[in-house]
Amino acid sequence: MAAAEAGSAPRTLGIIAGAGPVPRRLIAACREDGRGVCVVAFEGQTDPETVAGVAHLWTRLGAAGEILDFLRAQGAGELVLAGPIRRPSLGEVRPDWRAARFFARIGKRAFSDDGLLGSIVRALEEEEGFRVVGIDQVLGGGTLPPGPLGRHRPDAQAEADIRRGIEVAAAVGRLDIGQAVVVQQGSVLGIEAIEGTDALLARCAGLRLAGPGGVLVKLKKPQQERRVDLPTVGLATIEGARAAGLRGIALDAGGTLIVDRRETVAAADAAGLFLVAVEGSSGGR
Amino acid sequence: MAAAEAGSAPRTLGIIAGAGPVPRRLIAACREDGRGVCVVAFEGQTDPETVAGVAHLWTRLGAAGEILDFLRAQGAGELVLAGPIRRPSLGEVRPDWRAARFFARIGKRAFSDDGLLGSIVRALEEEEGFRVVGIDQVLGGGTLPPGPLGRHRPDAQAEADIRRGIEVAAAVGRLDIGQAVVVQQGSVLGIEAIEGTDALLARCAGLRLAGPGGVLVKLKKPQQERRVDLPTVGLATIEGARAAGLRGIALDAGGTLIVDRRETVAAADAAGLFLVAVEGSSGGR
Repeated sequence: MAAAEAGSAPRTLGIIAGAGPVPRRLIAACREDGRGVCVVAFEGQTDPETVAGVAHLWTRLGAAGEILDFLRAQGAGELVLAGPIRRPSLGEVRPDWRAARFFARIGKRAFSDDGLLGSIVRALEEEEGFRVVGIDQVLGGGTLPPGPLGRHRPDAQAEADIRRGIEVAAAVGRLDIGQAVVVQQGSVLGIEAIEGTDALLARCAGLRLAGPGGVLVKLKKPQQERRVDLPTVGLATIEGARAAGLRGIALDAGGTLIVDRRETVAAADAAGLFLVAVEGSSGGR
Repeated sequence: MAAAEAGSAPRTLGIIAGAGPVPRRLIAACREDGRGVCVVAFEGQTDPETVAGVAHLWTRLGAAGEILDFLRAQGAGELVLAGPIRRPSLGEVRPDWRAARFFARIGKRAFSDDGLLGSIVRALEEEEGFRVVGIDQVLGGGTLPPGPLGRHRPDAQAEADIRRGIEVAAAVGRLDIGQAVVVQQGSVLGIEAIEGTDALLARCAGLRLAGPGGVLVKLKKPQQERRVDLPTVGLATIEGARAAGLRGIALDAGGTLIVDRRETVAAADAAGLFLVAVEGSSGGR
């Protein structure tokens, strides 16, 4: 790993941008720090508003040569992978020769999210000379002391639902699927796969049982490369949890990114939801 | 277990009826055999058309005393639990004193599907003197030789998706959740929790990746009491799989009930879907 020299000005940050608001938060953070920034955006994945007023390249996922050329031309020394990328079929990727060579080399690891992302990070660092950093290294946060973040606290039923959720999320995470589950009164209402947490919450609104509401548990996968895909909680998560009749959210103390933390905690407080950091991926049960 | 005496006429069958068509198939099978039949139907769960023209009781899940009195008055010696029952909250159950005593005795097993159903079966047999039989003991079927049931066969990609689906369904099933997963090109599009297979398929229609379609894998949970809740595949499953762009269905050779088997296999053939029995819960990977 080519570490930045101590004391040197931070190099231009290249953002490999998936969907959602996190890439925009990173751009804003660079601007506040007077740091150069550029964005690689993917058709059908990145939000169009993400690239407004910033150096960017619209491309497809398989265009490895074009992406590397753009990042070098922009002088990007550090890279960050930010925001969910919907897993494409191989047909959608249309790999160029460079990407094809990469896929040939990593073989079947390409079919596992963590294997693919880990291999991409290794290739960017070891073969292409970039340094890959985690979102939390730019935005701060990323680890949290266990315990409540806002005003509200889980009761005994919610605590039991959180324990059940940790058990299920850990088992599903070990298979490199999803990060989130919804549990109400011991029943698992929903498990996230490819659809994302917002769609999971929307579905669970219609599956709600009578009586005390459930909880959302969102954990880092045990083997997850924390630089590429930290579980994220933000205003949309709070609103989705409220609309689904949940009583709160448990997130991974060891690796959850809270987007706009102050606003997110305030929204949870206002909605009457607890927001609690738990030790999930590193034990906790 | 009080086994029926060899050679004696089969006793009246009491059907504890959840939703869907299986209770009606059981009624039809009893009539063909000239066997007495009666139905316990649950408000908000059992289809209203199920009880047309047959002795029945509409009640709630917690009305244990009323249910047992009805079954005895009808002379039901054998019972079958058939069709999915949406898991209720404790508030919806409104247990009578008999049900409350039962819940108090089984304790926290009431919060696990398999623990609850297994405890109900044991209580019906050991304390109340009924014999509980599996759906397949009335309708036939229930185990299948591994291999294709219809005209179509999975190709190598579909075989790989089936193996991944078995791995995921087994892990989720060990936690006493769901029975079904959808996999396309190695990606897990959806995992069933409380919503049922039809809702899983409807959701996966919107999550479909480009390229070769995925597969539905539906297995018995490893520890599942096969008399109470065999995974079921029928015409609705075929139609849902077709609409979701899937290429076929893998079901558990050791415990899947195919409702209206001839029509279901014909519908799969007509839709171009494979239907293949796999050794899931007893190994297979």
